[in-house]
Amino acid sequence: MLLKTEDKRTLKPDLRINTQRLEIDFNELAEIGATKEGGISRLALSNEDLQARAWLANRFSQAGLLVRDDDAGNLSGVLLSKNQNAKHLLIGSHLDSVPNGGRYDSSVGLLAALEAVRSIQEAKIKLPFHVEIIDFTDEEGCWQSLFGSRALTGTLTENYLYDHNVDYGPFRAALYRAGIRPADVYKAKRDPSSLVGYLELHIEQGYRLHEAGIDIGVVTGIVGRTTYDIRFYGEATHSGTTRASARRDALRGAAVYICRAYELVQNNFPDGILNCGNIQVFPGAFNLIPSEARLTVECRHQNREALAEMESQLTRLAQEVAAEYRLTTNSQRVVHMPAAAMSGETISYIEQACDILNVSHMRLVSLAGHDAQSMSNFTPSGMIFIPSVNGISHSPREFTEWRHVVSGANVLLHTILLMAQAYQT
Amino acid sequence: MLLKTEDKRTLKPDLRINTQRLEIDFNELAEIGATKEGGISRLALSNEDLQARAWLANRFSQAGLLVRDDDAGNLSGVLLSKNQNAKHLLIGSHLDSVPNGGRYDSSVGLLAALEAVRSIQEAKIKLPFHVEIIDFTDEEGCWQSLFGSRALTGTLTENYLYDHNVDYGPFRAALYRAGIRPADVYKAKRDPSSLVGYLELHIEQGYRLHEAGIDIGVVTGIVGRTTYDIRFYGEATHSGTTRASARRDALRGAAVYICRAYELVQNNFPDGILNCGNIQVFPGAFNLIPSEARLTVECRHQNREALAEMESQLTRLAQEVAAEYRLTTNSQRVVHMPAAAMSGETISYIEQACDILNVSHMRLVSLAGHDAQSMSNFTPSGMIFIPSVNGISHSPREFTEWRHVVSGANVLLHTILLMAQAYQT
Repeated sequence: MLLKTEDKRTLKPDLRINTQRLEIDFNELAEIGATKEGGISRLALSNEDLQARAWLANRFSQAGLLVRDDDAGNLSGVLLSKNQNAKHLLIGSHLDSVPNGGRYDSSVGLLAALEAVRSIQEAKIKLPFHVEIIDFTDEEGCWQSLFGSRALTGTLTENYLYDHNVDYGPFRAALYRAGIRPADVYKAKRDPSSLVGYLELHIEQGYRLHEAGIDIGVVTGIVGRTTYDIRFYGEATHSGTTRASARRDALRGAAVYICRAYELVQNNFPDGILNCGNIQVFPGAFNLIPSEARLTVECRHQNREALAEMESQLTRLAQEVAAEYRLTTNSQRVVHMPAAAMSGETISYIEQACDILNVSHMRLVSLAGHDAQSMSNFTPSGMIFIPSVNGISHSPREFTEWRHVVSGANVLLHTILLMAQAYQT
Repeated sequence: MLLKTEDKRTLKPDLRINTQRLEIDFNELAEIGATKEGGISRLALSNEDLQARAWLANRFSQAGLLVRDDDAGNLSGVLLSKNQNAKHLLIGSHLDSVPNGGRYDSSVGLLAALEAVRSIQEAKIKLPFHVEIIDFTDEEGCWQSLFGSRALTGTLTENYLYDHNVDYGPFRAALYRAGIRPADVYKAKRDPSSLVGYLELHIEQGYRLHEAGIDIGVVTGIVGRTTYDIRFYGEATHSGTTRASARRDALRGAAVYICRAYELVQNNFPDGILNCGNIQVFPGAFNLIPSEARLTVECRHQNREALAEMESQLTRLAQEVAAEYRLTTNSQRVVHMPAAAMSGETISYIEQACDILNVSHMRLVSLAGHDAQSMSNFTPSGMIFIPSVNGISHSPREFTEWRHVVSGANVLLHTILLMAQAYQT
């Protein structure tokens, strides 16, 4: 792929997406899996997720796009180039949500892509590449984070469905129900030489754009993220009669760990982010000292070395706390997504598109994970962020002003046009 | 009921229980619900519990006892006095266990009572009261602590099956399956004037007898116990993008609470006992800040005023921590068992029985709850403790030396004989 970056004209500088059509799509999709709090529950591979996929496939079909899905359940609508041998520009996001999440997270990315493609069709613009809108399976990690994009890039681990320590039976059943054969998921891998690149529009999910009053965030990179399953083991003896000095209380150890871990990150890693999202306690009776506490720990940092050091200190802390409270401990690294860098050229196209549209923009690092994280090591990738009001996300209170959704979709449209213009096979 | 305490002769001072027969019973019962770790899982109303009841009913029947059960599922074997209008001396304990608990907790109490009764029969001793061995339903609180003894004493709360905040459906189903009609449970209430008293043999579940090298503990009282359901509420926003100062993390609040609560009890209530036995976190995703943490807190103290003050400080602490971490909180008192005193006369009979048998004894307060706690406000009650090796209980490693099981059973036998001798209608 060669790009003529010096050429700053666009094919149709005055072209804009159809706001009303986008809004109709947005409102229809937001009804699938709607919660009474005004949010969305579309867990990956759930009935609601499958219903949303069917809805999107119909929309693709109505727009005259080629509808296809791959062996990992990723659903695509392709605007074909006249050149049958053309490469694919992927524009992705995902329909699945966290439990009771927001209506903007990810949905707007797919709908903006669909609207941009429809606008290109209506303007009868011929593109030198196929534009493939792609809904990735299970971005949020209801089963496995970035499942679809990791399958497409061939970065699922060998044991993604057969780990000894985890019962993947329900996941396999959910895949089968969605028409995905676990043994065939590897076939979803694409050839990077068949791709032009990857684009994704997404809400920021943070407060930086909103507070700065900036319309568009141009993502330069995505924080690295690692999750751990940290277990503390004590002994389940009688809570009333075991003397204090003989207690081996796994929950108390885990509680001390949580307190100290947040302090450690605050003191030693001011740019790092920690989340202890869950804990399970066994046997869990009111009159038994907890013998086991399983803690879910997530670390994020934009710097790869700092993330590694943060992980090292957090796992050492678990050993220290365990020793102090007469417990044993075991830390297992469950998921690791290295920090990702977006393509410099793609960043430049997004910024040019903003300038053509006269919308303000700033560069920033994504503090949330995205499919672009898998994609960026595979094909030149870029992300367009639009502001989240008060930075609230993964919540029914997630909100983005409609004018920002519209300007984001127009930036996406003109980024595609700029890439097309600069593109030479 | 009048007792001639000055008369220290027994009916048959040389009578001893049949050790081998007791051991056969012990080994057979220990197989019902046996776990691979060498413990017992006989949760109240489970298949294993029902199987153990059937086994015990058969043993009662083989011993020629009258087998009966009441509307709360309490199972009795009665050695009838010649006097048909006689009162009942209840000798209780329970067949249910905590998950993967020990083989001695409670089972030895029922088996020792059965063996004592068989020995009395064989010696052709006529008693002035009926001796009723009783297996109480759900002592351990799998569903509701001391359910059977609270039903018998009429101290179940009005809403024991219909609390608004709890789904009692599974409990009702378990009762029905065991042949217990929830609406009839109140009929299990007995008339205290029909009872002579209550006796219970139990392992200490603590380390005091074992460390002191004493054979028998004569229980003077039982600690009061209160359990709380303490909930912390925050907000489930995105773990990566929510700024640290905006996090409303319910699990972090609960962790801080656990740490401070143990320190509070250690500093302010050196004789008090705290246990945080379980915590549940919602939504529980690795990438969502926990919006709710439900903590099970249990407090014990032998002094009623101190327990009330301990509860007050612990619920106030929850409010302080919640305020500090931008959370809200709610504390619900789930179970309260006031501290209980054993009968002075019964204590004296147990000590006399020890002296007749020439076994060492000491008085102590029970740090664990027992059905005697319900019974002691209803009828003169006494408890006989035997040593637990290293104080371990509610664990597969629970162990009591066989010689102590035997001496405990003999003390129980002679306590019955002393009571019979002193008894005048």
